[in-house]
Amino acid sequence: MKKSIGPRALAYPTPVWVIGSYDKEGRPNVMTVAWAGVACSKPPCVGVSLRKATYTHACIMERRAFTVNIPSEAQAREADFFGIASGRDTDKFVATGLTPVRSDLVDAPYIAEFPLILECRVVHISELGLHTQFIGEIIDIKTDEELISPDGYPLLEKVKPIVYAPVQQRYFAIGRELGRGYALGKPSK
Amino acid sequence: MKKSIGPRALAYPTPVWVIGSYDKEGRPNVMTVAWAGVACSKPPCVGVSLRKATYTHACIMERRAFTVNIPSEAQAREADFFGIASGRDTDKFVATGLTPVRSDLVDAPYIAEFPLILECRVVHISELGLHTQFIGEIIDIKTDEELISPDGYPLLEKVKPIVYAPVQQRYFAIGRELGRGYALGKPSK
Repeated sequence: MKKSIGPRALAYPTPVWVIGSYDKEGRPNVMTVAWAGVACSKPPCVGVSLRKATYTHACIMERRAFTVNIPSEAQAREADFFGIASGRDTDKFVATGLTPVRSDLVDAPYIAEFPLILECRVVHISELGLHTQFIGEIIDIKTDEELISPDGYPLLEKVKPIVYAPVQQRYFAIGRELGRGYALGKPSK
Repeated sequence: MKKSIGPRALAYPTPVWVIGSYDKEGRPNVMTVAWAGVACSKPPCVGVSLRKATYTHACIMERRAFTVNIPSEAQAREADFFGIASGRDTDKFVATGLTPVRSDLVDAPYIAEFPLILECRVVHISELGLHTQFIGEIIDIKTDEELISPDGYPLLEKVKPIVYAPVQQRYFAIGRELGRGYALGKPSK
């Protein structure tokens, strides 16, 4: 018998993604989100939700572009800081010593030191309530050579992304492999 | 210097969520997705993307409701099976022995044995390309008593949700805690 805990914004796992954007004056800014995920395969898209009150919301509305910078577990401290400080009064790149790089494909900066970058162009905006959801088409993915498998994609166990538990407010690392998709659950013949 | 791997639907981490719905005849069906995430805090909403070709897509279009059933790592096999088989020709509840429960709040079934359930009513539909994104308002969350913290929410380390690595097609467990949100990255005074 399940117990009801009422409606709230809680689900597991949620990602830790750092959103990069330029403000009106062309200053690079970053902000951490957990309300996000892949939204479509063709064209490849992600959905990223932001409160209207955030500085990044205004930046993306203006530039119609953003990057998703996926931190490694060793960068959890910087990722958390990017969710605490505001680009309105803090240059988060200066504060952390991380390096903004201008994307050559979309009007947004990415973080040189983060292992996995999605460069996105806004294709759809939905006002959902407190949050606005930006759907960004993934124009390119950039990663570090040493994280790439022989098949040409970055390996999760090398990227070491972070999982966030909302409400509980805890970050977690990825653990052991549980099995292969489209294989683990295949009925035996 | 980052290496470009081209645009593709790849991001880390993605969730493993099993979507519950009723078909026209009222038969319970479930399907596993990774293109999903929380989308808004007020009202609390999730976004779940499905290909139009799936059986679940038609069910949700008809009923305008679904459940998100979050499996524990011990249920990875069933979750993978739910992504391989189709409700068109398979009763996935019969095949796995899991128990469908009718939600008393939305027109959709949930899985009794899964640890964390979100009951959702569709409030927004976006056609993004190959995938349709359903935004569901979370009407209630149900969980198992023994997973709930003294503060009244389910603990991630007890739910033990699964992470999926798309393209690579591997499931992973959650690992060690990395720190507290809004604390780990706080500048020291």
